[in-house]
Amino acid sequence: MPGLMFTIHATDGAARTGAITMARGEIRTPAFMPVGTAATVKAMKPHDVRFSGADIILGNTYHLMLRPGAERIARLGGLHDFMGWERLILTDSGGYQVMSLSELTKVSEDGVTFASHLDGSRHMLSPERSIEVQNLLGSDIAMAFDQLVPATATAEEQKAAMDRSMRWAERSKAAFRGSGALFGIQQGGLDEELRGKSAEALTGIGFDGYAIGGLAGGEGHEAMCRVLDFAAPMLPAGKPRYLMGVGKPDDLVEAVLRGVDMFDCVLPTRSGRTGQAFTADGPINIRNARFAEDKEPIEPGCPCPTCAQFERAYVHHLVRSGEILGAMVMTEHNLWFYQRLMQTMRDAIAEQRLRAFASEFLGRYRSSSRGA
Amino acid sequence: MPGLMFTIHATDGAARTGAITMARGEIRTPAFMPVGTAATVKAMKPHDVRFSGADIILGNTYHLMLRPGAERIARLGGLHDFMGWERLILTDSGGYQVMSLSELTKVSEDGVTFASHLDGSRHMLSPERSIEVQNLLGSDIAMAFDQLVPATATAEEQKAAMDRSMRWAERSKAAFRGSGALFGIQQGGLDEELRGKSAEALTGIGFDGYAIGGLAGGEGHEAMCRVLDFAAPMLPAGKPRYLMGVGKPDDLVEAVLRGVDMFDCVLPTRSGRTGQAFTADGPINIRNARFAEDKEPIEPGCPCPTCAQFERAYVHHLVRSGEILGAMVMTEHNLWFYQRLMQTMRDAIAEQRLRAFASEFLGRYRSSSRGA
Repeated sequence: MPGLMFTIHATDGAARTGAITMARGEIRTPAFMPVGTAATVKAMKPHDVRFSGADIILGNTYHLMLRPGAERIARLGGLHDFMGWERLILTDSGGYQVMSLSELTKVSEDGVTFASHLDGSRHMLSPERSIEVQNLLGSDIAMAFDQLVPATATAEEQKAAMDRSMRWAERSKAAFRGSGALFGIQQGGLDEELRGKSAEALTGIGFDGYAIGGLAGGEGHEAMCRVLDFAAPMLPAGKPRYLMGVGKPDDLVEAVLRGVDMFDCVLPTRSGRTGQAFTADGPINIRNARFAEDKEPIEPGCPCPTCAQFERAYVHHLVRSGEILGAMVMTEHNLWFYQRLMQTMRDAIAEQRLRAFASEFLGRYRSSSRGA
Repeated sequence: MPGLMFTIHATDGAARTGAITMARGEIRTPAFMPVGTAATVKAMKPHDVRFSGADIILGNTYHLMLRPGAERIARLGGLHDFMGWERLILTDSGGYQVMSLSELTKVSEDGVTFASHLDGSRHMLSPERSIEVQNLLGSDIAMAFDQLVPATATAEEQKAAMDRSMRWAERSKAAFRGSGALFGIQQGGLDEELRGKSAEALTGIGFDGYAIGGLAGGEGHEAMCRVLDFAAPMLPAGKPRYLMGVGKPDDLVEAVLRGVDMFDCVLPTRSGRTGQAFTADGPINIRNARFAEDKEPIEPGCPCPTCAQFERAYVHHLVRSGEILGAMVMTEHNLWFYQRLMQTMRDAIAEQRLRAFASEFLGRYRSSSRGA
């Protein structure tokens, strides 16, 4: 059996719904992967993450290699055992974090040397080391190591980074020894020609799935949609397409419409900790004084454990008081919101009514969210 | 039916086990009450607090009157509804916190005026206002408002504060309108004569239960035991005795041996958040480097959800990384430890073997805890 089997059950325009089957379980697609940076989806117990509907979570290679260390996690039986998550884990390559979080970073053809953001200690990441770390973690889906450049980079810098990323993708593939799957990452910024060359290089190497990188960096919703219009169809239709680091609920809907199958984003967890709750009527900030005596749940009609038990007035109090329980219940609601959105889209695709759903969802979500 | 019915099922020396029955439920005694200062037992969902074995929790009048406000909680249906805790709640009077947390405090015969530690706003607590706040919160067991003095106070200051506290106890009783129960608080520091006068005054007024105050202020374990030897028997044998703010597991065992029925303490929750875990072999600090690759649960044999799922190595990583899940699982384990200790003592009393249990527990707990 190959590391990964992707079955498309139904399509609706460019959108598709199906399942990725691997040894440890199945991912219903389109899928949202909660981010578990440091071997924990922050403020959530693993079984509550699963209960929210997640088939797979994401772990961060950069963070885990620095603390507690990839070799340590391997000695403890791998990331699944370590954190008590029995289902699937995708690990990123560390390429993004090493450029955005670390210091004294030096990039060469060999790889990247950098100083840890935790203690300043020196480390190295290369395609070979990134894949080795991901194998040590025991990830089900590993990502090729790529070079990120800021959105402000010149066209020349964009092209050089993309070319290098494709050479690194080849080295990543050669280094990969895991029993799971390996995804390549398309780069090329907002440029159609570069995206095309990147897709061509990646499909030439051959991967179990293809990610679209470089689109969670502040280019904006319109630019993202425009790039997806041409970038997504460049990637093989028979393999999963993963849009990295995206995004807001409306981003997810637009990307699914354009044929994306997988997503990850810190937004539901991170913004939950700061008081932003997602609802079908747009995000609300639970710290807002108007919720101080509001006896409704965070989102009326939401079936999540938080909305079943607590009122906005109480969550408002918890978040304003800096209580840990506030982060817990807000995160839980937001993860349920994201997973319910994915389930609704899967159902809509299966029933050939995704466009109608998207139009209704986006209209309601955007029109009401200005008061947040 | 009176607000509170106390039934002693068995005694063993001075110790007793039984049940306090109230409209909302039953408290198995001896009982430990987790502290839910700001309408939350920190880092725990209410049903997980209940699942740990808690029949009753404590809420802090001082904190709740300042945020979100007692009148607001009353408008929202009372503290039970507000925080989603259906079982019993005891509220303290605010007398302790107003002296230890607030600023610009002025004490007169009428009461205490003070500045909020949150925003400096001016507030007042008196016997009448404290009882009013506790009624607004809807507490099942309210505490009389008393005047605390530091352990360094002179004998004269101790006596004056005790005398005033007894006058305030009488005013508290007169102000009490709740359908629940009201407890008086014995004061008098470490002085047997003062303790006796205080007990006499309180029993003259008549309360549903009697607390022993002023013994969680750093007087030390030996002094606490010495005071309990004479102070506990001064309180009516047919009413619950509550030792306020105590304490460590060995404090609890010694106090139960001396006839105490109820306890509250922030220790299991607060120290859980900083990495101290309680075990039968004494406390351990999970941050210690020796746990970095330890595959045992926090306490081998412990039936709590944390020990059933996670290894010390993982909890060590979580706590060292400042992850919220670390606070969650450590708190859960510690609350389970405390509740299991209470259950074990209840069983030992019922079977007339508390002294043997205490000797074995204290020997093991103290001999091993030095390496923590």
